[in-house]
Amino acid sequence: MPLKKPHNGLQNGDGSHEKDSRHFGNGSQQQNVDLNDHEGEQNLPSVLEVSNNSPVVNGIGSSLANGSLNLHSTVKRKLDGEKDYVFDKRLRYSVRQNESNCRFRDIVVRKEDGFTHILLSSQTSENNALTPEIMKEVRRALCNASADDSKLLLLSAVGSVFCSGLDYSYLIGRLSNDRRKESTRIAEAIRDFVKAFIQFKKPIVVAINGPALGLGASILPLCDIVWASEKAWFQTPYATIRLTPAGCSSYTFPQILGVALANEMLFCGRKLTAQEACSRGLVSQVFWPTTFSQEVMLRVKEMASCSAVVLEESKCLVRSFLKSGLEEVNEKECQMLKQLWSSSKGLDSLFSYLQDKIYEV
Amino acid sequence: MPLKKPHNGLQNGDGSHEKDSRHFGNGSQQQNVDLNDHEGEQNLPSVLEVSNNSPVVNGIGSSLANGSLNLHSTVKRKLDGEKDYVFDKRLRYSVRQNESNCRFRDIVVRKEDGFTHILLSSQTSENNALTPEIMKEVRRALCNASADDSKLLLLSAVGSVFCSGLDYSYLIGRLSNDRRKESTRIAEAIRDFVKAFIQFKKPIVVAINGPALGLGASILPLCDIVWASEKAWFQTPYATIRLTPAGCSSYTFPQILGVALANEMLFCGRKLTAQEACSRGLVSQVFWPTTFSQEVMLRVKEMASCSAVVLEESKCLVRSFLKSGLEEVNEKECQMLKQLWSSSKGLDSLFSYLQDKIYEV
Amino acid sequence: MPLKKPHNGLQNGDGSHEKDSRHFGNGSQQQNVDLNDHEGEQNLPSVLEVSNNSPVVNGIGSSLANGSLNLHSTVKRKLDGEKDYVFDKRLRYSVRQNESNCRFRDIVVRKEDGFTHILLSSQTSENNALTPEIMKEVRRALCNASADDSKLLLLSAVGSVFCSGLDYSYLIGRLSNDRRKESTRIAEAIRDFVKAFIQFKKPIVVAINGPALGLGASILPLCDIVWASEKAWFQTPYATIRLTPAGCSSYTFPQILGVALANEMLFCGRKLTAQEACSRGLVSQVFWPTTFSQEVMLRVKEMASCSAVVLEESKCLVRSFLKSGLEEVNEKECQMLKQLWSSSKGLDSLFSYLQDKIYEV
Repeated sequence: MPLKKPHNGLQNGDGSHEKDSRHFGNGSQQQNVDLNDHEGEQNLPSVLEVSNNSPVVNGIGSSLANGSLNLHSTVKRKLDGEKDYVFDKRLRYSVRQNESNCRFRDIVVRKEDGFTHILLSSQTSENNALTPEIMKEVRRALCNASADDSKLLLLSAVGSVFCSGLDYSYLIGRLSNDRRKESTRIAEAIRDFVKAFIQFKKPIVVAINGPALGLGASILPLCDIVWASEKAWFQTPYATIRLTPAGCSSYTFPQILGVALANEMLFCGRKLTAQEACSRGLVSQVFWPTTFSQEVMLRVKEMASCSAVVLEESKCLVRSFLKSGLEEVNEKECQMLKQLWSSSKGLDSLFSYLQDKIYEV
Repeated sequence: MPLKKPHNGLQNGDGSHEKDSRHFGNGSQQQNVDLNDHEGEQNLPSVLEVSNNSPVVNGIGSSLANGSLNLHSTVKRKLDGEKDYVFDKRLRYSVRQNESNCRFRDIVVRKEDGFTHILLSSQTSENNALTPEIMKEVRRALCNASADDSKLLLLSAVGSVFCSGLDYSYLIGRLSNDRRKESTRIAEAIRDFVKAFIQFKKPIVVAINGPALGLGASILPLCDIVWASEKAWFQTPYATIRLTPAGCSSYTFPQILGVALANEMLFCGRKLTAQEACSRGLVSQVFWPTTFSQEVMLRVKEMASCSAVVLEESKCLVRSFLKSGLEEVNEKECQMLKQLWSSSKGLDSLFSYLQDKIYEV
Repeated sequence: MPLKKPHNGLQNGDGSHEKDSRHFGNGSQQQNVDLNDHEGEQNLPSVLEVSNNSPVVNGIGSSLANGSLNLHSTVKRKLDGEKDYVFDKRLRYSVRQNESNCRFRDIVVRKEDGFTHILLSSQTSENNALTPEIMKEVRRALCNASADDSKLLLLSAVGSVFCSGLDYSYLIGRLSNDRRKESTRIAEAIRDFVKAFIQFKKPIVVAINGPALGLGASILPLCDIVWASEKAWFQTPYATIRLTPAGCSSYTFPQILGVALANEMLFCGRKLTAQEACSRGLVSQVFWPTTFSQEVMLRVKEMASCSAVVLEESKCLVRSFLKSGLEEVNEKECQMLKQLWSSSKGLDSLFSYLQDKIYEV
């Protein structure tokens, strides 16, 4: 792996680099782009004005990319200054015009040829943080994709952050109001969200464009193929935040990364770069940011040309031994979170930590 | 690992490099070489004429080494132009003269001091592809080695390819004739072949000289130590070929490589170089092609000097927790293949894919 | 990982490098150092005279660092010529003066703020080799730490070797006298020692300063976080020494390293450098020797600031699925060792191997 690192992503699809990245995914874009509506979005930079190699990124975005900010500053700041993901943004606005895709508020769901594409694109939280409501939308989209003729699912995100995990502002707000009721409600929302990934029968491909934190990183081993941009990084600082692991990471992380690294992530908040995550097995392959979307789309389309039966049966074989174990772990983890949140001691510890962070920022 | 990559294979046996590689394994060679017979093989290059560093490799061989050919072109072409494996070739012809070794057609079995050496050397398929008949020969050899006083088994291959997996020409031929009967027969042959590896109680060392594809790669985690030449590479493009995983790879690959990379191999046909396979845990260590055979033989002989009880009991401890699980996986995987092959839809999809590939070549 | 190897250890705690390493851990040192007693130790090099970058290492130490000596020469030679670990030495002598820490002979136990620090510092064996008596001391210390208010445990070693595994001189001496009784006694001591690690409920952090051999390497996956100095290396040459695996390595090594590498370690005595062990999952992170202690102590103190409940419950979630399996493996492994040692054949093979090695040296 490391010998060829700079060319990691080029092994199977060299031809794709000749394509202009702005043309990526244009088959479906062309169907949906409504120029009038697009122009109506005054704040949206035109795709034509923006080079993918643009050095213009705002300060916060670039410090995130350097990995020098911790979870909580990322949680509290809105990071949409990056202009690399113009495709996604244009998509977001254009797709929202499309009648059949307008049923969701915080995710975008696109029915493509042979697969369903879910994009995290939260309007009600920052940095694609997860609330019970957003998790419910993802579950609904998974449920739809499992019932329709999609052969597989592609999960990605709009913006420069993949997913910053649970929304801690939401958590503090709700738990302060009604500890008992809300701790149960939120823990159950996490449980059902994670369960939906465990039980999904078609292959799930995840494309990680940027930071994946907490629950946003924990669910990756429940997906089947994980492609990451060089800009992605991964962190699950549960103990640091005074939480216990979620998303089955207490089981899947030691399984994949070894006990030593998994615990360093869960207990000490060790951050993995995309390359580290790849060399340790959390990520399938890393691609250059500029061609990331094309590389992913190329491969997803090739996968979607396979037989649906073979894809589903292969996943069934791979997952059959893990499934019941994972469901049990998920139950235990969420039970533990509920206990922590409903105990005044656990909550105080969480609150004092999070509030310190908020005041710091 | 990566820091020292170029010297990876040299760590434990530096002294061996002083030996002339042409002398490798000569203890047994000298017993068996029959010069008259050797000279009778007009097409066989004399070992004395060939330098191990010879740059003379044919076009197909070198493009294989570059990894730019896919499975099917390798399956359809005979790749024995490489002259690096002269030892194996001379061995093959000389061994065949030896009475006690002549019972097999597509494999060579050598009883060495303390271990049994099985070499894939298929006469009835190309690139050491596996047919039910060849798999039966391997099973018989494993059975013999388990009963005699061998302390361990060495599995390698004659030629420049380790094993190209199931023989698809054979598959198409047979399944076209009698889908129902042949799908059962072939699936059972695979099941019994894989089961023989799962149940073998003495350590199995595999030496991978070149490409290991499909079933030829899938069985590696059922072996105990996997040494690979820099020229080796690994690919299991089951879904691409419209097949479900075999050889327990649906269980062992996620276990060893992590779900993300395992699925990329099983679903997308991701190819691993020897170094990648080593850094991800599929391979124990990588050696330079020119000294590969010596390095392997040195280590195998050292292992064979250990106590037979310690070797068998150590393997028993390592495998005890996996064994029953692996047998179950093997049954499921073969059941699934049988279903695919006996359904006209599954077969059509496989045929149209394979026939396209054959016409392409 | 490999891209940033030289800076591996610096990611999370760059600030610490500005500290003078001699001041490391000085909070507690200052409380305990008794200058009079220190001066009374004539053979102990003064900490003030020794630079951490000192090139003065004795021949044995440096060849060990190069990895060119095998287990047995390391077992038979006392390697305390290295002057890099002066901190530990000063600690050892100073701590021994402190009333509450004097209960142990071959380990040093320090109660720190929020955690317990156990240092292997064997007086009755060479190179921190383990005897039943030393293992009992460690068990006692683990038992104390589980009962008191420590949130976690830090395990490290005094000197330049972390732990050289079972003490073979002890083994030969005892088993020669009373094979039957001693084989049971020693196997049970190993079983109970390993069980104490399996059952310990608080996170265990291990800091590996130098070679970790045999049982000293095997127990690492039973710990939660493993930080290693660049000088550390790892070897478990059980089969080479005519032993079967111990410390649950027959289960944990294949799980973490993959079957191929695990077996190469268990059967062929393959040695892993710190970087290799890190890239394959046995070690969480590797640090420069000169700042190793500070980096570890920084992180341990940060961990110890977490909630005790969260730490213990997180470990419980991570370990719950492994625990019963590990206990079973431990029983099997020790049963097997007992059988080997109580059979005259197994013992002869072990003795002849070990005695050869002793005469060699």
